Amino acid sequence: MKLSIVGTGMIVKELLPVLKELDLTLEAILATAHSQKNGEALGQTYGIPNVFTDYDLLLESDCDAVYIALPNHLHFSFAQKALEKGKHIIIEKPIVPYIAELSSLYQLAKKNNLIILEAMNIHYLPAYAGLKNKIKDIGDIKIVQFNYSQYSSRYDDFKKGIIHPAFDKEKYGGALMDLNIYNIHAIVGLFGSPKTSSYSANIEKGVDTSGILSLDYPDFKVSSVGAKDCKAPIINTIQGTKGNIVIETPINSMTKFTINLNDGASEELDFNQGKHRLFYEFKKFNEIIDNSDTAAANNMLDISIQALRILESSRITQ
Amino acid sequence: MKLSIVGTGMIVKELLPVLKELDLTLEAILATAHSQKNGEALGQTYGIPNVFTDYDLLLESDCDAVYIALPNHLHFSFAQKALEKGKHIIIEKPIVPYIAELSSLYQLAKKNNLIILEAMNIHYLPAYAGLKNKIKDIGDIKIVQFNYSQYSSRYDDFKKGIIHPAFDKEKYGGALMDLNIYNIHAIVGLFGSPKTSSYSANIEKGVDTSGILSLDYPDFKVSSVGAKDCKAPIINTIQGTKGNIVIETPINSMTKFTINLNDGASEELDFNQGKHRLFYEFKKFNEIIDNSDTAAANNMLDISIQALRILESSRITQ
Repeated sequence: MKLSIVGTGMIVKELLPVLKELDLTLEAILATAHSQKNGEALGQTYGIPNVFTDYDLLLESDCDAVYIALPNHLHFSFAQKALEKGKHIIIEKPIVPYIAELSSLYQLAKKNNLIILEAMNIHYLPAYAGLKNKIKDIGDIKIVQFNYSQYSSRYDDFKKGIIHPAFDKEKYGGALMDLNIYNIHAIVGLFGSPKTSSYSANIEKGVDTSGILSLDYPDFKVSSVGAKDCKAPIINTIQGTKGNIVIETPINSMTKFTINLNDGASEELDFNQGKHRLFYEFKKFNEIIDNSDTAAANNMLDISIQALRILESSRITQ
Repeated sequence: MKLSIVGTGMIVKELLPVLKELDLTLEAILATAHSQKNGEALGQTYGIPNVFTDYDLLLESDCDAVYIALPNHLHFSFAQKALEKGKHIIIEKPIVPYIAELSSLYQLAKKNNLIILEAMNIHYLPAYAGLKNKIKDIGDIKIVQFNYSQYSSRYDDFKKGIIHPAFDKEKYGGALMDLNIYNIHAIVGLFGSPKTSSYSANIEKGVDTSGILSLDYPDFKVSSVGAKDCKAPIINTIQGTKGNIVIETPINSMTKFTINLNDGASEELDFNQGKHRLFYEFKKFNEIIDNSDTAAANNMLDISIQALRILESSRITQ
């Protein structure tokens, strides 16, 4: 695919060297007037021929797909415009804040034979595929405890009154949208939708700086922590009647996990292939878009909808 | 004190060698007709002069205090009778199922100048005292995740239809009453009462075989797991704005903990004195009763009431 990139932030800087390993063409990058120099430097480093500051011009350019890596509140309008211009879209997580918006994008994509993908890397990690395979070995699941706590340097700014998008309630920031979203996707990808969910959050200046999401499934219960105001040694645990699985990294960078069976047997399964955690998703996105694999895209979009249902009902809106 | 023991179960067998290290007199032990041989063997091993199968006879004997280690549904009636006979009481956890019952016991004890103590060992552990001391070092608390998961061999029986008291809904069994109670006491002892609590449980045959208790405090949130149908590597974490504390054992047998500060400094604090985890509580109970230290007893009873408030509002009653 020929890909254009919208945004010059941290995730773009992390992704660009990864994209160089894939068989795709980088067509253009969009910067703001403020970040134009930054965009030009990225263009030069990664051989992106066009650096725009006007989104309309970028959409006129010859690309198949647009990757939208902007603050959350801009996802919908930028995605809508790209679809209207006949571009497939890859949207950075969390895809959009509202199910109604996603439905509207989906209708537009369907009408124009276009694909919508959420850049949620978990689903494409080899270790996550391994986890899905092995989870049956621990019997009936009873308790799941996930934790993604990462102290944000932007929390210090936030305390001083300097509000970055990830802490801005108007821009759909907060710990649930920024970090717990990974746990939610991992859980929904493993287990589907819960019966009910509830979110107990620490709220400062109207935004959740951390919180515990409780998910109620018919036969097991889930507690999922996301925190940007504190950190902890990360340990994700899935407890079943025959054993448990432990993942000792944030779920979105898992490369291995340990299965401990009740009889004492313990095994570490390592899926590390030496690739960056974002490699696998963009490899797959490239295939899906090149092959117009709408079925695969819709399967992934189903998971996005299930995750979004939890987000929309739990998100702090005060 | 002169102590009589009511019950011959696992906890009594664990406690008796510990009591031999303390400066107290074992006066009598109560067995059932069914467990009389067991009681006599314990009497012989630990030099307990009287072995009764009739509770009235035990209460006529010359003891200051009665330690009640029976299934949960019997705590209240046995405690009430002991108080009526002028005996101080130590009740195995969880103290009684209802606040109204505890109030009634308290009135009776007050009238007769007697002491009520809950055998909840956490509050007396040196490592727990150390934790209370050090918790200020991790800044403002944001997230607490406790987990007491211990696969019970009696769960296998339970599945087959053989219902032991700890799995019997009629006898106030279940994971909340049996295991999560330790977490609750530890949390209430550190932080006092939450604003609200809610319990999401896995229920089989009307009893919670595992579950996640959510406690909502004004400035932080708590998730506390108790499970008897599965197990996990136990990790209890307290996350603050300046660092976190990790306890890698069930909270009721903690001897050490680790403080990890956000700046990278990490310290393990070890309070192990080579004593059994039950040593410290009975040492203190002995002092409280010998000195008629009603103030100390009432302080501890306050914590029992706070814990009981959570239990009573969360317990599965279906």
